[in-house]
Amino acid sequence: MVKSSIDPILSGERMALARLLTEVENDSPAARRTLDELFPHTGKAHLIGVTGAPGTGKSSLVNQIALHYRRADAANPNRVAIVAVDPTSPFTGGAVLGDRVRMRDLSGDPGVFIRSMASRGSLGGLAQATAGMVQVFDAAGFEIILIETVGAGQTEVDIARLAHTTLVVESPGLGDDIQAIKAGILEIADILVINKADLPGVDNAESALRGMLSLARPVENLIHHGQVMSVPETESQEDSQWEPPLLRTIATDGTGVEELLAAIDQHALHLRRTGGWKQRERARLEAELQTLLTETLVEEFRARIPIKHYTALVEKLVQRKLSPNEAVKLLLKGKA
Amino acid sequence: MVKSSIDPILSGERMALARLLTEVENDSPAARRTLDELFPHTGKAHLIGVTGAPGTGKSSLVNQIALHYRRADAANPNRVAIVAVDPTSPFTGGAVLGDRVRMRDLSGDPGVFIRSMASRGSLGGLAQATAGMVQVFDAAGFEIILIETVGAGQTEVDIARLAHTTLVVESPGLGDDIQAIKAGILEIADILVINKADLPGVDNAESALRGMLSLARPVENLIHHGQVMSVPETESQEDSQWEPPLLRTIATDGTGVEELLAAIDQHALHLRRTGGWKQRERARLEAELQTLLTETLVEEFRARIPIKHYTALVEKLVQRKLSPNEAVKLLLKGKA
Repeated sequence: MVKSSIDPILSGERMALARLLTEVENDSPAARRTLDELFPHTGKAHLIGVTGAPGTGKSSLVNQIALHYRRADAANPNRVAIVAVDPTSPFTGGAVLGDRVRMRDLSGDPGVFIRSMASRGSLGGLAQATAGMVQVFDAAGFEIILIETVGAGQTEVDIARLAHTTLVVESPGLGDDIQAIKAGILEIADILVINKADLPGVDNAESALRGMLSLARPVENLIHHGQVMSVPETESQEDSQWEPPLLRTIATDGTGVEELLAAIDQHALHLRRTGGWKQRERARLEAELQTLLTETLVEEFRARIPIKHYTALVEKLVQRKLSPNEAVKLLLKGKA
Repeated sequence: MVKSSIDPILSGERMALARLLTEVENDSPAARRTLDELFPHTGKAHLIGVTGAPGTGKSSLVNQIALHYRRADAANPNRVAIVAVDPTSPFTGGAVLGDRVRMRDLSGDPGVFIRSMASRGSLGGLAQATAGMVQVFDAAGFEIILIETVGAGQTEVDIARLAHTTLVVESPGLGDDIQAIKAGILEIADILVINKADLPGVDNAESALRGMLSLARPVENLIHHGQVMSVPETESQEDSQWEPPLLRTIATDGTGVEELLAAIDQHALHLRRTGGWKQRERARLEAELQTLLTETLVEEFRARIPIKHYTALVEKLVQRKLSPNEAVKLLLKGKA
C-alpha cells in the first residue's frame, strides 16, 4: 500500500498537482479526503477573480497579469496559478490561433500552472470544483491565483466575485447587446479595466462606464458583496470604503498591466487594513460550505430513494397527477 | 376573506398573471400552493428555448417569432408568452433605444405577455423561477412559450435546453472569443439560426457552423439531452433522429422568420411522432423536481441548524481548524 501523502502537493510537484486537480474535478472521495488534509495549509494566496463579457480580451489580460507577477520580484518570484472557468477562454481549449500563440509566454514556465474547466457539470458542480482547485493551488504555495470566468452566467459571476479582488474587464467597441452585460456586473468590481484601450471609442467607453459606475455602486454595496448569513459588523463603513479605480490596458502588448498590478496590490493592502480581507475569506468559505452542504444533502437523499419509487413519481408528474412541489413533499415523507 | 382562486389565471387575466409571476419569482408559499393547483392544467404549450452568444440578436428574433406566431392563424391566433432570462436582453431592461423601439411591435398586443428575470438569485433560484413562470403561462393557455437565455452561462444554457425545441442563434461577424461559445452550445440545438444574415461573412459563418455541427453532434446526442435518471428506452434511435436544420434570418426586417416557424412546427411534429415530446417533458419535469428537491432539502436543513452553531462553525473554517467537507459532516451529524 502506498501511503497517501500530501507532501508532493505541498511542495508543488506538477504531476501530483495535475492528478489531484483531475480528482477534484471529478469530486472523488479520495479528492475530498485530500482536500481535508490540505485545508489547514490554505489561506495564504491572493485570489483574483477576472470576469467580463466575451470579446473583452480577459484571457490575454490574465496571461499578462501572470507574466507581470512572475517578473515583479526577480529575487523571489511569485508562483501563479490560473483557473479558467470560461467557455470562451483560450485556456479552456476553445481557442483560436492568435490566443494560443500569446499563451506560449506562459507555457514552459514552471512557476505557472494553468488549469481549465471546460465541462459543464451539475448546478453546484462548477462552483465546488473551482473552490477545490483554488484550495489545492493555495496549499501548494501559489501566491497568486487568478480565476477567470465569463461575466454572463449567474454561476460564473458568483465564482469570480468570491475572490479577494474582483476585476471586471470591459473593452470599447463591443456591440450594444454586450453593453448591457456590463451594467449587471459593474457592481461586483473592485477594479475596473478597460482593455483593448488602443481601439477607437475608448474615451466614450470610459465616460459611459463612469456614468454606469456611479449608478451601479451605491455606498452600501462597497462593504460586502457575498450572500452570507453571518457578516460581523465590527468594521465601520468608513474604513471599508474603496473607490474602484478605472484603468486602461492593452493586453496584447502589456500596456497598463504594471499599473493594474499596483492597483491589485493596493486593494489587497486596503482589505488587510480594514478587516475586509477576513470578511471576504469568511464570505467565500461560507459560500463553499453551502455549496458542499447542498451537494451532500442531495447525494445522501438520492441514495435513500428507491429508484422504482422515483420513476413512478416522475411518471405521475408527466401525467399531471402530481405537481413537482407535491412530488417533493411525498419524497421527503418517504412515499412515492 | 377572499377565496384564493386560480380562475383568473386560467382565463389569462393580465393583472392576476402579473401578480402571480412576481410571487413565483419570490418563491412565496402562496405561489407554491397556486402552482400546485395550476399544474393539472399544464402540458399544452409548446416551449421554445432560444439561446446564443450576446450580440447575435436573439431578442429581436424572439420578438419576430412572437409576431409571426400571432399572425400565423388569423382566425384563431396563438397567444405567446416570452420569458427572458438573459442579462443582455432588452426584455430584461438592459436595453438600448433601438431595441426598445423594435419591441413596440409587441407591446399593446393583449395576446402577448413578456416577463423578464433581471435578478440574479441563488444557484437553483433562476431555474426554479423560470420553471414556475412557464407553468403559469402554460396553465393560462399560452400556446407558445419562448424562453430566451444567454448561451454563455451554465445555468442559462441548462434552462434553454429543457424546452421542447431549442434554437441556437448565431450571427456572422462576432469576435473570435464569441466563436468559442458557439461550439459549446451547438450540441443542444434542435434548430440552428444564423441571424443578421445580411452581414458580410454569412457564407463563411455558415460553412464554419456546418463543420462544427458535424463534430459537435454525434448520433447519440440526438436522442436526448437531459441529465435524467429514468429515460425510457421504448423509442428506437432511428425514429428519434432529427437533423438540425440551419436557417438564415434577418430579425430586423423579418426575413426568414416564416421558414423558421415552419421548422419549429416541423420539429414539434417530429417529437410527437417519435415519442420525443413525452421524453422531453419527462426530462424537463424531472429536472424541475430535482431543482425543487434540492432547494427544499437545503431550506429544511437550514431551518434546523441553530444560527449560533453555524456561526461558530464558519469561524472554525476561517481559522482553518475545519475543512468545508469536515464542517458539512459535523452539520449533518447535528454538531457544530
